[in-house]
Parts: sequence; structure tokens; C-alpha cells
Amino acid sequence: MAAHLSAVLTIAGSDSSGGAGIQADLKTFLANGVYGMSAVTALTAQNTTGVTAIQEATPEFLAAELDAVFTDIPPRAVKVGMVASAALIEVIAAKLQGYHAPHVVVDPVMVATSGAALIAGDAMEALKTKLLPLAEVITPNLPELTRLTKVGILNMETMEQAARQAAEAFGVAVLAKGGHFKDGAAIDLLAFPDGRLESYAAPRSSNPNTHGTGCTLSSAIAANLAKGKPLAEAVGDAKAYLTGAIQADIDLGAGRGPLDHGWNLSGSFFA
Amino acid sequence: MAAHLSAVLTIAGSDSSGGAGIQADLKTFLANGVYGMSAVTALTAQNTTGVTAIQEATPEFLAAELDAVFTDIPPRAVKVGMVASAALIEVIAAKLQGYHAPHVVVDPVMVATSGAALIAGDAMEALKTKLLPLAEVITPNLPELTRLTKVGILNMETMEQAARQAAEAFGVAVLAKGGHFKDGAAIDLLAFPDGRLESYAAPRSSNPNTHGTGCTLSSAIAANLAKGKPLAEAVGDAKAYLTGAIQADIDLGAGRGPLDHGWNLSGSFFA
Repeated sequence: MAAHLSAVLTIAGSDSSGGAGIQADLKTFLANGVYGMSAVTALTAQNTTGVTAIQEATPEFLAAELDAVFTDIPPRAVKVGMVASAALIEVIAAKLQGYHAPHVVVDPVMVATSGAALIAGDAMEALKTKLLPLAEVITPNLPELTRLTKVGILNMETMEQAARQAAEAFGVAVLAKGGHFKDGAAIDLLAFPDGRLESYAAPRSSNPNTHGTGCTLSSAIAANLAKGKPLAEAVGDAKAYLTGAIQADIDLGAGRGPLDHGWNLSGSFFA
Repeated sequence: MAAHLSAVLTIAGSDSSGGAGIQADLKTFLANGVYGMSAVTALTAQNTTGVTAIQEATPEFLAAELDAVFTDIPPRAVKVGMVASAALIEVIAAKLQGYHAPHVVVDPVMVATSGAALIAGDAMEALKTKLLPLAEVITPNLPELTRLTKVGILNMETMEQAARQAAEAFGVAVLAKGGHFKDGAAIDLLAFPDGRLESYAAPRSSNPNTHGTGCTLSSAIAANLAKGKPLAEAVGDAKAYLTGAIQADIDLGAGRGPLDHGWNLSGSFFA
């Protein structure tokens, strides 16, 4: 691999506890064999029990990060995670367009697991009109998909309807995550703007430690796209990587703990 | 490893290009089989050709990051890298003491490869009086060791003299890096405060891409200490890891490019 290591960029927040944000993304990139870079949108002081402080990057600084990356080591794929303000979203959209960024994966982080809104109203509008249309695929969870489409999701049928509607509205593929409506398998749906549909099943896990699952899945998809995989395969392989990281079943911290991003590497760790 | 993954914290700057700072540290932690966390002291917009912008964390925010980490997932080792201001150094020193942080490795970043000073005068004083004495080991390069000791280093003898003097002055082990005075092997010296001395040889590399070597070495030492290795062994193994990352010989970016932090993992990458 050495000489041809593919570079992948994450544009997201920093999680001091290492389980989510750029930390989860960089770990995922390494475990999937690509070279990781990161443009930080905000610093957060957080652990497995919550967020205690946030310090945002200025729009000017975020622009400088993106310029530094794109002018020197152009990424073969880009993952965009938490971006809380319209000004930052506009900087990202302008730079992704200006540099013709390939394979953009947007995890439209807007609703916390608790249900709390994570971005302001004008940021929501900028996300929908400026950033989402630049993506190859977006990876909303169910509350986020509902907020994007106004479709109340109660079962697999309404989840499919919402995913198809969002794919058409934004002209991007939509990975609808979290079809946990019945016992048994967890189902994700990938709706393409041309009407194609893929579904993915994964065994349900009893591990309550799921901090950073959304970040990990979207960055693994970006890594796979950078390696040249078609989207449907990139998603399937990313889900398999994520499943392994959950099933490794580590237990760190008092709250909802992080995943084991190195679960597949354990035979190769140095010394 | 799963259930007993050791946690390690880096306190350092963020490098958008992924080759140095917390990015290099987090990659090193994963490649060495420990769980990585990070308290960011400053965001930098940089690539392999230079730094174009810096946004520092406030002292209050850095304190919140450290509280979030230490109260939830106490690290078994801590690496401290770039900290540019006295106020931030004082926060770090107070928190490391307050939480009784074990195995502290300080990479006293103060002089860039170009020779330019990276920290202010009052930060230099805070570093020497408050932070360095809390370390188990410090890892200055030769210009930094000279600045700490006022010993001009011209050959192996003066390097040994400076390392011994710093070890005694600060009461910590001192890894003097970069004894490149003659052709042949590169020699590092580890001087203990009790007068013991270890030396390490590594084959010289022709790879000009050495962005982040200091960060990588110090974080690998921290990872090894977290795993329970004695210091002399932790340093030797960290040097072997670093040597592999240099010799993997990747070439990214127009300037002094990054290392291959995953050189030892290539048989295990996912998909």
C-alpha cells in the first residue's frame, strides 16, 4: 500500500474522549487502510456522559484548514460530520465546490440521541440547500431523516418512503439508518436518486456502548469510496466494520462508551 | 485485549494535514493497541509546507477537556506536546497534579525544525518550572535541549552532558534525540535523574518525509508506558515503531511529508 495510500478528509467536531468526531474518524481511517486528515469545525469537551463545553472554529480558520489540506494532499473522499452554524456550512460548501472534492459523505448531525436539536434553524436551511446537494451519500438517523422530509417514520414502509423522498429532493443517495421496528435484524436502507434501493441487515447487538457509531459508519463509507468501491459495496463493508467495532464489546467510561476501532487489527499491534 | 484496552491521553495541537499533533498521536495509539483520547491545546491549519493559521483553545476550555477525560476514562499515560502559552501550561500542570496523572511524557515543543521559536518567553518559564518536573520522561530535540540547558551541543559528549544536566535539573528522565554527528547510525541517549544512561541506535533513513516524527515517538513511548513497560524498554520499542513508520517511505504532499502510522497493520486493514 505504502506509496499509494489514499488520503481521506474528515470535516467534523473534536471529541476529547476519543469515541466520536474526528477522533473516531481518524481511527476508522487507519483501521481501513487510508491516510486520515481532519478539518476541525468545533472543539468539544465531552466524555461518555455528555458534553460540557464547546469552542467553535471561526469560519476564517475553517477555511484556512480546508485550503491547507486541499492544496497539498487532495483527499480522494471527504466525510462531513457535525457543523453547527450556517457560516461554517457555507465555508465547507464553497470549498468542496471550489476544489471539486470527490466522494463527499455527509452525516447530517442535527439531533442528539436524546432528541435535542444540535444545530440552529439557519444552519438547518444552509445544510439542506448548500451542503446536502454536494454529497454522494448522506447518512441520517431516523430523527434526522424525519426532520429532512417531514415524514413521520413509524415502520419500514415509512422509512423507505422518507429515504426515497430525501434522495429525490437532494439528488443524493440516502442511507436511512436504524430500522429497529421489530425484533430480529436491524435494517438500513440505501435509496438512490434514480429509484434503486439496497437493504442491509446486521445482527442486533446487546452492547449499550454505542458512542460514535454514526461518525464511524460515515467515515468508513468515505474510506471505502476513496479505495474505489462502488457506493452499495462501500456501505455494506462499512456496516461490517462498524458491527465488528460494536461487537468487540469494550466498556470504557461511566456512560454510553466508545467502540473498539482497532478490533480488526489486534493481531498486528506493535509490540 | 478488548475489555482491558488501556487509555492514553494526548494533550497537544491539532494538525489539519494529519501528520503531526493529536492526529499523529491518535494514529500511533491505535497502531500500538491502546485507546486514544485527546485534549486539544490549539487548532492549526497546516500542511507539509507550513502552518497558515492557528486558533488556540482558551485556558477554560482546555480545563474542561481535561476534566471531561480524567473524570470518566482515567488515562494510564499522558503525552503532552505543543502548548504555546503560559496560561495553558499552567492549566495542564494543575490538572495533571490534581488528577495524579501517571506516566507523563512531555515533548517540549519549542523550536521548529527551521529554528524558529514556537513558544513565548513566559511559556518557556512555565514549562521549565511547572510542567517538566511532572514528567517521567521528556523528549527534547537538540535545539530544545540546548535551550533547556544552555549547553551548546556539538558532538556526542556535549549531548550526553546536556542530557545528564537536564535530567538532574528537572528530576526526570531525558531522551536526547538526534545525535547525527557522524555518518552511520543515529544515536539517542536516555539519561535518568539517578545518573543511569541508555543509548539507542537506529539505522539512518534517506526518507526526507519526517513530518511528525517527534509527536510519534513521544506518543509511542506513552502507549508503551500505559501497557506497563519500563521506561528504557518503552523508549526502545517506540523507536522501533517510529523507524518502521519512516522506512515505509510514503510520499504525500509537496513538502516534508507524514509517516505511515499504519505500517505494522497492513495485513489487518479492514476490507
